[in-house]
Amino acid sequence: MTSDLVQSRAAQTLLDKVSGVLQEGGDPRVKQIVRRIVSDLYTVIDEFDVSPDEFWLTLGFLQNGAPEFGLIAPGLGFDHFLDMRMDEQDRRRGIETGTPRTIEGPLYVPGAPLAQGFARLDDGSDTGEVLVMHGCVRDAAGQPVADAVVDVWHANTLGNYSHFDTSQTPYNNRRRIRSGADGRYKFQSIVPSGYAVPPQGTTERLLGCIGRHGQRPAHIHFFVSAPGCRLLTTQINIDGDPYLHDDFALATRDGLIPAIVRHDDPESMQAEGLNTPYSEIEFDFTLTASVDPGDTGLHARPRVPALESAAA
Amino acid sequence: MTSDLVQSRAAQTLLDKVSGVLQEGGDPRVKQIVRRIVSDLYTVIDEFDVSPDEFWLTLGFLQNGAPEFGLIAPGLGFDHFLDMRMDEQDRRRGIETGTPRTIEGPLYVPGAPLAQGFARLDDGSDTGEVLVMHGCVRDAAGQPVADAVVDVWHANTLGNYSHFDTSQTPYNNRRRIRSGADGRYKFQSIVPSGYAVPPQGTTERLLGCIGRHGQRPAHIHFFVSAPGCRLLTTQINIDGDPYLHDDFALATRDGLIPAIVRHDDPESMQAEGLNTPYSEIEFDFTLTASVDPGDTGLHARPRVPALESAAA
Repeated sequence: MTSDLVQSRAAQTLLDKVSGVLQEGGDPRVKQIVRRIVSDLYTVIDEFDVSPDEFWLTLGFLQNGAPEFGLIAPGLGFDHFLDMRMDEQDRRRGIETGTPRTIEGPLYVPGAPLAQGFARLDDGSDTGEVLVMHGCVRDAAGQPVADAVVDVWHANTLGNYSHFDTSQTPYNNRRRIRSGADGRYKFQSIVPSGYAVPPQGTTERLLGCIGRHGQRPAHIHFFVSAPGCRLLTTQINIDGDPYLHDDFALATRDGLIPAIVRHDDPESMQAEGLNTPYSEIEFDFTLTASVDPGDTGLHARPRVPALESAAA
Repeated sequence: MTSDLVQSRAAQTLLDKVSGVLQEGGDPRVKQIVRRIVSDLYTVIDEFDVSPDEFWLTLGFLQNGAPEFGLIAPGLGFDHFLDMRMDEQDRRRGIETGTPRTIEGPLYVPGAPLAQGFARLDDGSDTGEVLVMHGCVRDAAGQPVADAVVDVWHANTLGNYSHFDTSQTPYNNRRRIRSGADGRYKFQSIVPSGYAVPPQGTTERLLGCIGRHGQRPAHIHFFVSAPGCRLLTTQINIDGDPYLHDDFALATRDGLIPAIVRHDDPESMQAEGLNTPYSEIEFDFTLTASVDPGDTGLHARPRVPALESAAA
C-alpha cells in the first residue's frame, strides 16, 4: 500500500525538511532513519485515515511522562501533515475554505476572559512594543459574522507563555473577544517574540542529531469560532522575523503573514489612546460554513485545564 | 524496499502476537495500526541494519522521562526481534551457536558480588521454595570453560527485583559466580515468581487497548561470559508456569526450559545442607567462540549504575 498524499511533492518536501536531509550538520544516518520512520508514520496516518482526535489521543499517551513529545510531533511535521490531510480532504469534497488553517501547538489554555469587541491582552508588565491588531470575522460569502469568538494567545517578549511560565499573571496575553454585529474584533497587546524548544531537552537533542534548530518565528495563535461555522485553528506570523520561513514546527503558511505597520506619529498614537509608538496589524478571518457535526468545536486533544479563578 | 526477515513466517507470527490480532478483546483498529507501525519499525531496523547498541541508545532517549518504554519495547517484540536478527546473522555467517540467546530486559544491575564456584543469591528473608541450580559452562566443543562468570539475577516470590524494589537488601537475588577448572557453577536461591507490568502504567494501558495481558512467566536471567567467548545473554524459565508460552515479552525459547525437580527426601536435603524440601535445576551453558571485536562484553545499553558499597 502507498499513500498518494505522502508521495506528493509537498509531503516529500516536508519530509526533507523535518529530517534535516537538505542541510549540513547532524548525522546523515540518523537523518535517513528519521526520514524513513516519519514517512512510514505519515503513511499510516493517511492509509488508516487516522483522525486528528485519534492522533492527539495517541500523542497524549506518549506525553504521559515525556511531555516533549508535544514538541517533537510538530518538529517532525506531524501537526502540519494533519493540516495537509484536512486541506486535501476539503479539496476532494469541493469545500471552499477561507483563512488557511495551521497548527495549534501545545500551549493553549482554555477559559481566557471573554470581552466584547475589544480586549487588552497583556498585563502591562512587559516593556515590549505595543501591538494593536484588529479586523473583521467574515463568512464564506464575505459577510461580517456577529458573535464570533476570537480566542487569541501569544508569547511575551521573552518568548514565554503565561501558565507554562508561572512568573506571568494568569491568562496574560490570552483573551477571548466576541465580535459585534459588524463582525469586528480588536485587541491591544505587545508584539511577541519568537522562541526555541527548551535547551538540553529531548526535542533539542533529537534536532541536534539531524542538524536542525528548534526556533519558532514570532507568531500569534487563534481559534476563531462562530455559530454555524467551522472552528478555525490558525496563527499569524510577525513579518520580518529571521525564522519566518524557517519555523521548526513548519506552521508558516501563505496568507498568514499580514503586514505590520509601525506608527510613531502623535495623531495615530492619540487615536489609539497611547503615548508611545506602536505597531498595527489588520487581519480579517474568513470562516467556512460548518460541514460536519462537531466541526464547530475543538479537536479532542488533551489540553491543560482552565484556571478556576478566571473561568468561573 | 522490503525486509525478508520481517516477511518471514516467524516474524509475521511475532507481529500477530504482539499486536493482539489473534485474540479477542481490545480494539480491532488499534490492533491493526499497532501491527503496521511495529512492522514498519522492524523493517527499518532490518533494512538500515540498526545495531543493538543503536537500538538501546534510541530507547534510552525515549525512556528519558517515560521509563515504561523499557517495557513497551519488549512487549511489542522489539527485544525479541533483535534476537531474531542476531540469530539470522549467525546463520548466514555459518556461526554455530550454543545456548540460545534471549532478551536482557530492563532490570539488570551491574556489579553484583562475585563468588567462586558457588553463591547463595537470596538474603534468607523470602519464605519461597528453595532452589538449587547448577551446571557446567562449556565451549563450542563441549569442553568445560574455566573462569567463566555466570551473572545471575531474578525476582523474589512477589515478582519484584532488588534495587528497583527498594524494600529488598542490595543485590538480593543477584550474584556473579566464577567457574573453576571443571567449568561448574552452582547457586542456592528461592524459586522466583512471575510478574506483570505496573498496574495502570502506560504499558498496561497500551496492552489493554490491544486485548493483551502484561504477564511474564517466572524466569531467571543470565549473562555468561568467559575469556575468548561471546557474552551470552539469556534466561531460563521455571517449567509449569501458566504463562510459560504466553510471555508478554516473548522471551521464552526452546532449549531454555530445563526440568525442575522437587526433592523432599532426607538424603537429598542433607546432601545440600538443607532442612526443607527444595527444587533443583541442572542447566549447562554452551558458549560460542568470540567472532567480532567487542562481542565478549555487554551491548552499550543504558543501565542503572552499580551500587557503590557492593561494587567496591
